[in-house]
Amino acid sequence: MKALAIVSGGIDSVTLAYKLAHENQLGGLLSFDYGQRHKKELQFAAHTATKLGSPHHLIDLTSITKHLKGSALTDDVEVPDGHYAAESMKQTVVPNRNAIMLAVAFGVAPAHDLDAVGMAIHAGDHFIYPDCRPDFANLFEQMEQKALDGFWKIKLLTPFIGMSKGDIVRQAEVLGVPLAQTWSCYKGGAIHCGRCGTCVERREAFHLAEVEDPTKYADQNFWIEACRDRAPQN
Amino acid sequence: MKALAIVSGGIDSVTLAYKLAHENQLGGLLSFDYGQRHKKELQFAAHTATKLGSPHHLIDLTSITKHLKGSALTDDVEVPDGHYAAESMKQTVVPNRNAIMLAVAFGVAPAHDLDAVGMAIHAGDHFIYPDCRPDFANLFEQMEQKALDGFWKIKLLTPFIGMSKGDIVRQAEVLGVPLAQTWSCYKGGAIHCGRCGTCVERREAFHLAEVEDPTKYADQNFWIEACRDRAPQN
Repeated sequence: MKALAIVSGGIDSVTLAYKLAHENQLGGLLSFDYGQRHKKELQFAAHTATKLGSPHHLIDLTSITKHLKGSALTDDVEVPDGHYAAESMKQTVVPNRNAIMLAVAFGVAPAHDLDAVGMAIHAGDHFIYPDCRPDFANLFEQMEQKALDGFWKIKLLTPFIGMSKGDIVRQAEVLGVPLAQTWSCYKGGAIHCGRCGTCVERREAFHLAEVEDPTKYADQNFWIEACRDRAPQN
Repeated sequence: MKALAIVSGGIDSVTLAYKLAHENQLGGLLSFDYGQRHKKELQFAAHTATKLGSPHHLIDLTSITKHLKGSALTDDVEVPDGHYAAESMKQTVVPNRNAIMLAVAFGVAPAHDLDAVGMAIHAGDHFIYPDCRPDFANLFEQMEQKALDGFWKIKLLTPFIGMSKGDIVRQAEVLGVPLAQTWSCYKGGAIHCGRCGTCVERREAFHLAEVEDPTKYADQNFWIEACRDRAPQN
């Protein structure tokens, strides 16, 4: 089995690419430009493809996303600071994003004779993003079996779906993933801001995994306050 | 309920738009440029939107389709002549086309406060195109309920899924659809060629519906030979 891995350039998807490569199942990386403010992440996806010697396919979805309802990830809405909580995460929902990306990936895989698509959705996102949950992934794979019936049979691989982001950082450490070469910050500045939901989540994941965080954050300590109900008090 | 109708400009989807308008459920028309050779059909979709006084959204998918496996509808492969039969229809399969279009439509609908998506898939296409079958449509709708859970609830309307193309032509006649203002031919010339699978199917549908066909075909009689096993012998 060879898989097309959907890779944004963040910790989770870069680790997925390394995991598939380690298992000799990586057939290519697929990234999307959907007009995200943090387009910078795509450089890290390209870097990962080069390091792993795997083809990198970049697809421009901006002709679609300009027709979607606005999200703080793509529009001129301020990216909220603070821990990923219900209200702030809702502002980062791009309507139907994962279904659109997966449907495109299931169309692209046959062009490269690949028989699986990999996506790095994980348990930490289940609370807010419905299209990161197991029910969604299972039904998506079943739907595609019907959509491609008689022509292609393509599996959906979501090996991190039951794992936390801390678990993924631990797995990355074991696989030797160069985590400094990944990007999370939704604000897309010169270095990680340290204040937005995904920066706080990144910082916390390294802490929980007990892995040293190689990331430079503009605000190094904001995460402690944002996570104060979860992280140990200093 | 207001629906976003996916309208190519052919008989089926234009009739769907008229049916939804008749039922006061039409909230907009969505068309896709996927690099189809018969791009001309899109003019008929735009014309339909104008006639029905409904917004028309056109989305360019060519940045995606250039990454898909070739099909006779988009590439420099000859469009086959003759009745829609297994081998010739297979050449017109665009991998995962309906899942991609529907996923985009389910993303676009919330931007216009619409709570349904309509697609004119019908029973005549079930034999070859797996993504026109009821199993596919049912699972797609279930998948989207999970994908959008907690944010939006959008229905999938496929009122023609159990009907033949002849049934649709009869319905169009009842609804007063201007069928001369629809386009089928995959070759996309000045007038319908009369020889490709979709021209033969169009001609046959009018015949079976016993509705006068207003279409000018370059080859008026080819369909009789192509359908000789089905049409009455003259």
